[in-house]
Amino acid sequence: MATTPFERRTRDAQAALAEAGADALVCFPSPNLFYLSGFSEDPGERHLFLFVPADGDPAFLVPDLYETQVRAATWTDNVRTWSDGEDPVAATEAAVSALGLPESPRVLVDDTMWARFTQDLREVLPDATFGLASEVLAPLRLRKDEAELDALRRAGAAADAAMDRVRELGADAVGMTESELAAEIETYLADAGGEGVAFETVVGAGDHGAMPHYRHGDREIRPGDPVVLDFGTRVDGYPSDQTRTVVFDGDPSERFREVHEVVREAQAAAVDAVEPGATAESVDRAAREVIEEAGYGERFVHRTGHGVGLEVHEEPYIVAGNDERLEPGTVFSVEPGVYLSGEFGVRIEDLVVVTEDGYERLNDSGRGWEC
Amino acid sequence: MATTPFERRTRDAQAALAEAGADALVCFPSPNLFYLSGFSEDPGERHLFLFVPADGDPAFLVPDLYETQVRAATWTDNVRTWSDGEDPVAATEAAVSALGLPESPRVLVDDTMWARFTQDLREVLPDATFGLASEVLAPLRLRKDEAELDALRRAGAAADAAMDRVRELGADAVGMTESELAAEIETYLADAGGEGVAFETVVGAGDHGAMPHYRHGDREIRPGDPVVLDFGTRVDGYPSDQTRTVVFDGDPSERFREVHEVVREAQAAAVDAVEPGATAESVDRAAREVIEEAGYGERFVHRTGHGVGLEVHEEPYIVAGNDERLEPGTVFSVEPGVYLSGEFGVRIEDLVVVTEDGYERLNDSGRGWEC
Repeated sequence: MATTPFERRTRDAQAALAEAGADALVCFPSPNLFYLSGFSEDPGERHLFLFVPADGDPAFLVPDLYETQVRAATWTDNVRTWSDGEDPVAATEAAVSALGLPESPRVLVDDTMWARFTQDLREVLPDATFGLASEVLAPLRLRKDEAELDALRRAGAAADAAMDRVRELGADAVGMTESELAAEIETYLADAGGEGVAFETVVGAGDHGAMPHYRHGDREIRPGDPVVLDFGTRVDGYPSDQTRTVVFDGDPSERFREVHEVVREAQAAAVDAVEPGATAESVDRAAREVIEEAGYGERFVHRTGHGVGLEVHEEPYIVAGNDERLEPGTVFSVEPGVYLSGEFGVRIEDLVVVTEDGYERLNDSGRGWEC
Repeated sequence: MATTPFERRTRDAQAALAEAGADALVCFPSPNLFYLSGFSEDPGERHLFLFVPADGDPAFLVPDLYETQVRAATWTDNVRTWSDGEDPVAATEAAVSALGLPESPRVLVDDTMWARFTQDLREVLPDATFGLASEVLAPLRLRKDEAELDALRRAGAAADAAMDRVRELGADAVGMTESELAAEIETYLADAGGEGVAFETVVGAGDHGAMPHYRHGDREIRPGDPVVLDFGTRVDGYPSDQTRTVVFDGDPSERFREVHEVVREAQAAAVDAVEPGATAESVDRAAREVIEEAGYGERFVHRTGHGVGLEVHEEPYIVAGNDERLEPGTVFSVEPGVYLSGEFGVRIEDLVVVTEDGYERLNDSGRGWEC
């Protein structure tokens, strides 16, 4: 029987654990769990773990009502269960002792594991020292393989198709509320083959666009309003993430036109800086220099981008101080923005993958503000 | 200036901390954070904490790009910030030392706080002992106030309206895929005033319904298929959660008719057992006895229900072994089910609130399998 990509990744993780001097990795429902096992689930209040020892066989511990699904999704048949009404901490203790860990093990837990579960792991492993799973998994997850890139390209194409339809709304978008437009965008994404949203859709009209993490609300879109649109969907588990700032109808202010042009140039400069061996911070710098020279440096209040894979935000972070060198297969966002509180915001974002000799864009819809 | 409900809850939490011998509570983006502050956000990779000392003023530490939103949403103006490019652990250390905690404090952290952040808190508070926030917050959040109940009732009404429209589909649902029907349901929920989904919509046709946590897929609905429909939306942050098992067209098997009747009786018996002072496990028992007497005890593989509030799953859990007594204002689901692997599943679920002399249903659409 051929080894699945999930089993291959688990074997790679075991080798990396041994190399890092760690004795086991413990995942709970998370992107890491999917990456290693093929089983995908949202975090919940029931104890559900994948234990990956550096030596020996990985083991699942799952609530018994998940057993069928887990066995169907994953490659290992080492699946222990516990039932509602049983003590999950005792079940965890039994699963942990079956691993045969050394007396004072070093254990890496999922970075997103809830305190409720890490507290229990500390109780059943009182002599362990704890670290984070990303220590061994982040380097493995950083380089996307062809199947992963294929999913990311299709997600990017869905985002492009949706953005094209948004622009076609033109003056018809005037009078819609931000929330209505967000719902419309989500329909376009689904029509284009996307599965749900990768994060809550952002539609920030007028001064709402000046809040970098605003989502959407009851405000109606007015003529001349700059509108920040930041949305993503998923294909085969992998997300798109694209931002455009547009004006649906009417004339925006001179200042908006100027700032939009600055952000567009900054974004283009940062994308052009992407190549294997370049540092993450050099991409940030390329965007920041353009915005600083235009006098808006203090209004570019966030990093230039974040890695994208199973998680919408993962390594590498494109930020000052990160001298990590970019490798082929790495995917991240390039999304400079300028935020003028009480006035408007402008952000333009694309995903790129580092190639052997430069970069490839994963989405490529028009970047202008005109609809 | 009138005290907001959020400030009142924080003062109650501070009193409860002191009573529990704890020195501080630390929230990160979570339902607890919203409950205490009014600021709502999804967990993310940036350090964002609300520190609530037993004595003194609560303090936020937030990435500076969140500052405007946090100040707009919350009642305290004690908001510290850090910038991308700064060290968030150093910022956390500074925020913690400003709290003036005792030398070896007892600190309660959000139950869902990511390991990535609890590891950092352990680093900056090396002499602290750690517990979970639910120790003081769960009892406060258990009893819903009128504003909370009002939101829950409106969410339940939206679920009822959506379910009525699903039944009207009748034979038109035959040939739809589970995923298409899920998308349709989500549109109905939004039309009825719901905000998004409270959890991923479940549409399990035929033997897919026998997996209690199945979501939806590409399978087409066929005549005679039992279909498990479990969905919820939110109103003002509070969810609905309702399950019906229906047959859109054609004749289901005799066995399905029998099992559906058993589950319906079990659910009615459990709802009738709800009154103040009854134990959580007695409600579970009432459902389980009906199903056991019918010979399906081993196929009812989960607890009878879970509390519902800001979280879709919270205390109290309606499960064997939980002798907690129900109090007025407590809201939970009553959802017995029978799962026949390879054949079909049946689950029927409603939300109820415990009243001074019994219970009130928060949703009440028809429970039969006929459309």
